[in-house]
Amino acid sequence: MIKSISGGVCAPKGFRAGGVHCGIRKNKIKKDLALIVADVRCATACVYTTNLVKGAPILVTKKNVADGYAQAVIVNSGNANTCNANGVEIAEQMCALVERHTGIAAGDVVVASTGVIGQPLSIEPIAGGMQELVCSLGDNSSAAAEAIMTTDTVKKEIAFSFDLDGATCKIGAICKGVGMICPNMATMLMFITTDAAVSPAMLQKAVSADVKDSLNMLSVDRDTSTNDTLCIMASGLAGNREIVSAGADYKKFCAALHEVTSAMCRMLAADGEGATKLVECRVVGAKSKKAARLAAKSVINSNLVKAAMFGSDANWGRVLCALGYAGADLDVNRIDVRFSSPAGEVSVCENGSGITFSEEEAKKVLSEKEIVIGVDLKEGNFSATAWGCDLTYDYVKINGDYRT
Amino acid sequence: MIKSISGGVCAPKGFRAGGVHCGIRKNKIKKDLALIVADVRCATACVYTTNLVKGAPILVTKKNVADGYAQAVIVNSGNANTCNANGVEIAEQMCALVERHTGIAAGDVVVASTGVIGQPLSIEPIAGGMQELVCSLGDNSSAAAEAIMTTDTVKKEIAFSFDLDGATCKIGAICKGVGMICPNMATMLMFITTDAAVSPAMLQKAVSADVKDSLNMLSVDRDTSTNDTLCIMASGLAGNREIVSAGADYKKFCAALHEVTSAMCRMLAADGEGATKLVECRVVGAKSKKAARLAAKSVINSNLVKAAMFGSDANWGRVLCALGYAGADLDVNRIDVRFSSPAGEVSVCENGSGITFSEEEAKKVLSEKEIVIGVDLKEGNFSATAWGCDLTYDYVKINGDYRT
Repeated sequence: MIKSISGGVCAPKGFRAGGVHCGIRKNKIKKDLALIVADVRCATACVYTTNLVKGAPILVTKKNVADGYAQAVIVNSGNANTCNANGVEIAEQMCALVERHTGIAAGDVVVASTGVIGQPLSIEPIAGGMQELVCSLGDNSSAAAEAIMTTDTVKKEIAFSFDLDGATCKIGAICKGVGMICPNMATMLMFITTDAAVSPAMLQKAVSADVKDSLNMLSVDRDTSTNDTLCIMASGLAGNREIVSAGADYKKFCAALHEVTSAMCRMLAADGEGATKLVECRVVGAKSKKAARLAAKSVINSNLVKAAMFGSDANWGRVLCALGYAGADLDVNRIDVRFSSPAGEVSVCENGSGITFSEEEAKKVLSEKEIVIGVDLKEGNFSATAWGCDLTYDYVKINGDYRT
Repeated sequence: MIKSISGGVCAPKGFRAGGVHCGIRKNKIKKDLALIVADVRCATACVYTTNLVKGAPILVTKKNVADGYAQAVIVNSGNANTCNANGVEIAEQMCALVERHTGIAAGDVVVASTGVIGQPLSIEPIAGGMQELVCSLGDNSSAAAEAIMTTDTVKKEIAFSFDLDGATCKIGAICKGVGMICPNMATMLMFITTDAAVSPAMLQKAVSADVKDSLNMLSVDRDTSTNDTLCIMASGLAGNREIVSAGADYKKFCAALHEVTSAMCRMLAADGEGATKLVECRVVGAKSKKAARLAAKSVINSNLVKAAMFGSDANWGRVLCALGYAGADLDVNRIDVRFSSPAGEVSVCENGSGITFSEEEAKKVLSEKEIVIGVDLKEGNFSATAWGCDLTYDYVKINGDYRT
């Protein structure tokens, strides 16, 4: 039984968080430095961007969590610390600052940055803000969630409780990103905490498997960022028997993890740059998991589908078109497509050909804030869901003059 | 010596063209039916979309040119005749109408359609317009170019003369396509005529090789259309010895062909839906041709790069990011990037890191109508060029309410 609770990353036992404005950003009311600390060393697993251009913080974090443990997370917004000649040095200095101010070894620190690529990041404002940051630590997940925002318009935090082996466990997260897929301002960062006891190896296995059906199925604009980082830390303070193999407890833990990541995906997609609508593509009846994922993501990625959703236009031909070039093994002559939303459902295509439907009804369905594009391939039993958003004037505006 | 000449598809000996409004489109001042006829059966080669969802006209055309010859092309705009239950039947009827009105065998007709997907296409307006269409045939390439336009804002036609084996040959083309363009291939339609004598096999070889560095390097929105068709017809009336192998004459012919296709790519990109700028990415110094092509196309495809070009923002971090996820074998720490245009040139990145540059100068360079993003990978001798355009409010506007 997975229950929604409050508290974000501070909901699980053993975690405190905080966030302050230290001056990386010029706007003084915008926090730009976040810290999460654990009372104990935590089993830790990360997943990073696949972009060959990687932010310097990723190189340092990889090294620090190579042993499967970490105890703190420091994150700045306003600068990605990427494509800078001294980037690694700066990221190392951020970890050293955490050690100096908290006593947690620099080698146990996860470091992340998000903001513009290719602009030198000065350590001064971070050093100057550390004392205030440490003082802000507490049951303060929201402050950390706020400090990692860039063009995000809403804070993203969530937490759930679930039972494992008789113990009540908790899992919480904060994240930011107007797409996992967006360089510069829109890097996806997600930090998950849990008090469940899970070995580093099983934690890595769980998170690596999960992202295939969560973050890797999310796309705002298919620009894979240089700084994407997902980090999960398990304090083990809930009192359950440590999960060390893929048994029943592991499955329960994975289910709770997926509640967190899929809820976050919906929040990220809905807050995509310039987005007015959350668009979800649910593919069923695929011959393979791979075909289902390729098909769902191709529809979500299509600029033409996205623009049609913005215009509440039931232009299902664009959905068929995106399925056709998805690179998935599918029979285009069997495809059914329907649009649905809180306002109802309308079937628009059967067996790959158009059917008569009410344009008025379709317009009503597509005018809602959350749209589902349902695709039935009618060839097998595999399914996948992808999340995205519409393509709007504001996306162009935000990205046309972001830097200058 | 390749020279630009006038006349479009009618420049080569043996071709006439025409275009009329027959009523597929409601707007009576917009032509919607085009015809190209040759005086003789022509060696003919085609390249089609790789989308699994294929327009019905493609299925019929494939059958009709299977023997390597054709003598006429009929094209309608306003309806893609795709995802319609009776689509093949309608496309066959269009060929039969050409036979009835011109005497050219239905089996020698290339048929193409462009417009909305999934709306039934009635044969009535086409049948009703055939007589007027045939009467319009003449030195009338422009009328045909006009009749195949959809959201294109300018007619696209071109012609060149070149010498082969002592004979003066000509090659001309018309094309259309502004959105759903990521020809691998997209609805990009291009019809090329030549009076050079080339065997069907060598014509197919030439065009299949050429698209790898022309149309397949063009992208407006990376939505690969269902109806893309490139068709080239060679009347053989120029008097050269027929090209039947890959010798010196074949190379000369390929050079002339590439003049046509690359010029058309620039015209297509510049007229991309909502575009205000032609953006060209020239990658040099790649380890392989494949790496060069992947890198160039990834930059051109990035929504964030495209939006930055719209805003004249020298946000080179987005270029690096797009190179990083291109899937190409390259060393991100060696990359140099510079922007250039008729207003000058500005270097922004060396060896993968930012360098100091004048924002004012960069703004001036990027405010021009034609921008070149120069990328030097400094690893080898291979190069590639890709063409695209900026991402603008108007792209969203056009595609947000195109259909209704």
